[in-house]
Amino acid sequence: MTPTLPRRPLIVDTTLREGEQFAAAHFSPEQKLRLARALDAFGVEYLEHTSPVASPGSERDLRALVGLGLSARVVTHVRCHEDDVRRALDCGADGVNLLFGTSAVLREASHGRSVEGLLADALAAIRLAQNAGVEVRFSCEDAFRTETADLLRVYTAVDACGVDRVGVADTVGVATPREVERLVGTVRAAVRCDIEFHGHNDGGCAVANAAAAFEAGATHLNVTVLGIGERNGIAPLSGLIARLYLSNPALVGAYDLAALPALDALVAEMVGVNIPFNACITGETAFTHKAGLHTNAVLREPRAYEALDPGVFGRERHLLSGSRLTGRHAVAHRAAGLGVHLSPADLRRLTAQVKAAADAGALADAELDALILAFAGTLPAPTALASNA
Amino acid sequence: MTPTLPRRPLIVDTTLREGEQFAAAHFSPEQKLRLARALDAFGVEYLEHTSPVASPGSERDLRALVGLGLSARVVTHVRCHEDDVRRALDCGADGVNLLFGTSAVLREASHGRSVEGLLADALAAIRLAQNAGVEVRFSCEDAFRTETADLLRVYTAVDACGVDRVGVADTVGVATPREVERLVGTVRAAVRCDIEFHGHNDGGCAVANAAAAFEAGATHLNVTVLGIGERNGIAPLSGLIARLYLSNPALVGAYDLAALPALDALVAEMVGVNIPFNACITGETAFTHKAGLHTNAVLREPRAYEALDPGVFGRERHLLSGSRLTGRHAVAHRAAGLGVHLSPADLRRLTAQVKAAADAGALADAELDALILAFAGTLPAPTALASNA
Repeated sequence: MTPTLPRRPLIVDTTLREGEQFAAAHFSPEQKLRLARALDAFGVEYLEHTSPVASPGSERDLRALVGLGLSARVVTHVRCHEDDVRRALDCGADGVNLLFGTSAVLREASHGRSVEGLLADALAAIRLAQNAGVEVRFSCEDAFRTETADLLRVYTAVDACGVDRVGVADTVGVATPREVERLVGTVRAAVRCDIEFHGHNDGGCAVANAAAAFEAGATHLNVTVLGIGERNGIAPLSGLIARLYLSNPALVGAYDLAALPALDALVAEMVGVNIPFNACITGETAFTHKAGLHTNAVLREPRAYEALDPGVFGRERHLLSGSRLTGRHAVAHRAAGLGVHLSPADLRRLTAQVKAAADAGALADAELDALILAFAGTLPAPTALASNA
Repeated sequence: MTPTLPRRPLIVDTTLREGEQFAAAHFSPEQKLRLARALDAFGVEYLEHTSPVASPGSERDLRALVGLGLSARVVTHVRCHEDDVRRALDCGADGVNLLFGTSAVLREASHGRSVEGLLADALAAIRLAQNAGVEVRFSCEDAFRTETADLLRVYTAVDACGVDRVGVADTVGVATPREVERLVGTVRAAVRCDIEFHGHNDGGCAVANAAAAFEAGATHLNVTVLGIGERNGIAPLSGLIARLYLSNPALVGAYDLAALPALDALVAEMVGVNIPFNACITGETAFTHKAGLHTNAVLREPRAYEALDPGVFGRERHLLSGSRLTGRHAVAHRAAGLGVHLSPADLRRLTAQVKAAADAGALADAELDALILAFAGTLPAPTALASNA
């Protein structure tokens, strides 16, 4: 009997659309194709590209992306204008991700249309795409500042029209995970089609909100590599992977997890930012242990202070032994590596020396080793360096 | 009548304890005092410092910190050893933040003690601190991997002993906001004392989890500036402030919000990292708008794509007009600034020229202005530059 697999979210990577809206991002045609190949090899199910009407280069690049023949489906983000949809179809996109701002503030400040007016435009755009046989998503921008009655009117209308999915977008990053659960759950009960979630990070909850959307019934989740996007961005791929893996590794079993560090490094270089020190999985020190209480336990059992195994993600564990926060076990471990084995009393004295020296600044490995060897040199011969033969 | 203020969380900043456990952090005595003064001026209610037993410098620095006489209470993070508590008391700390690892994996890999054994140590340490009249917090490390029955046994025992607060720590960053709500809610129902929450970011949910803890009844929340800490850190101050402000500005009305950018910059410089591009509020582009759909609406009404007003936080709004994603309104706004006013048809032609030029790379402001002025030069005289007089 085949074991039952858990329901898992499909990843819509929008680095080539939302990510391009990051202030510092400008992808060359070659960069876009390189990144698309890397994301396809990683295993994301969808790649979203900027609308072909954005600029001549955007149209050229979308055509080239479609031409790669990747496993991932190539979709493009287009306004509910029939001309825009026609251009997307002409480029050969596998799907159109339609959107419309439905909140009062966007209706007034952005397009000046009523919900009825935009729904008429949306249905025309949807039918045009459906007639061409491509996948259709329709998203309400700024869903969390939209009246729920308006949202449901729009979602049920486009669902009745047969869209593949509706999109719930936290466009300005205001939602809490609980609010996401509530709204996605409400939409889940109201439509038959799939549900996509897109959430910004203005309130620091982009990863938690994406995971909450999945829990509440969303089928597709938007991410970008590193989380780049308008303002301070959306859910980062590595962050979402970390969160889902912690809940159940099978949720992300379809992806090449060890490729995450290279993916994040690739985009960081392309857009000229550093990988944030606090990035999940790929942050430089995400698997570095420092305080003595931590290094002590990790030497015995890494799981003590590691919920994620670095090896799964192509990373390595590091233990810092030369800081003033170090502990006896970390010092003993470092000493043992030099062939120095100490009595408990000597280890306490040496650790105190290391801490006092490190008060002026953490010791580099070479400095720590020199201190250990100098200490060992003061001890009676057989005690130290015994096993160095 | 005085208006009823909402229940609000108290902030325990632990940059000088958890933050010091960040791999790259080593604060000099002068840096610690400078940072403590800045955090006190910002308005945090508590400053947590490394245990005075960690190193001679740690004890010296804790004494100096206490000596500043700040408004914030100075607490220190100490093991449940009576000697450690005595040292903290001797340094003059306003409180001791006691901790003990209660999960099976920490009991085995860290201290090898039973729950009964550690509870006996904890009660002795608590009584010692209480007799000295200082504030006492007792925290269960790794609470989310601890049996709930064990947790409640410990929390109710220390609550009965009269601690000021219990701490719920997501030490390895495994919890979801929903799990935090559930556990903090359970603890809230079981104890009379205050509840402190401390959550790591391994799963990308540190901010969401801290906010969820508050919603469920936590009274004190741990943060560090930038979120620095072991591995990839804990909830960042700016992120927590952003999240709470979005829910209700009154929750953070006690703090000097405009000081956040300088605080983040100060710590970034001290520990040698960049402020993450995706940091809430203080990320370089947190208030930068790029796509035409966004800049169009923001020119009319900033709230359209801004849930947070940059002015409240000492930041400024930026609109990028020279990318291939730009829109007519952004170009028109830039042109108007140069005294160039265009007909709708001319504006469409100019915008198309800007987009085509920007396909090779975003135009700097000077390049965009040159392009606008060159375009205006091709038009009949009264149409352009009319109002430049």
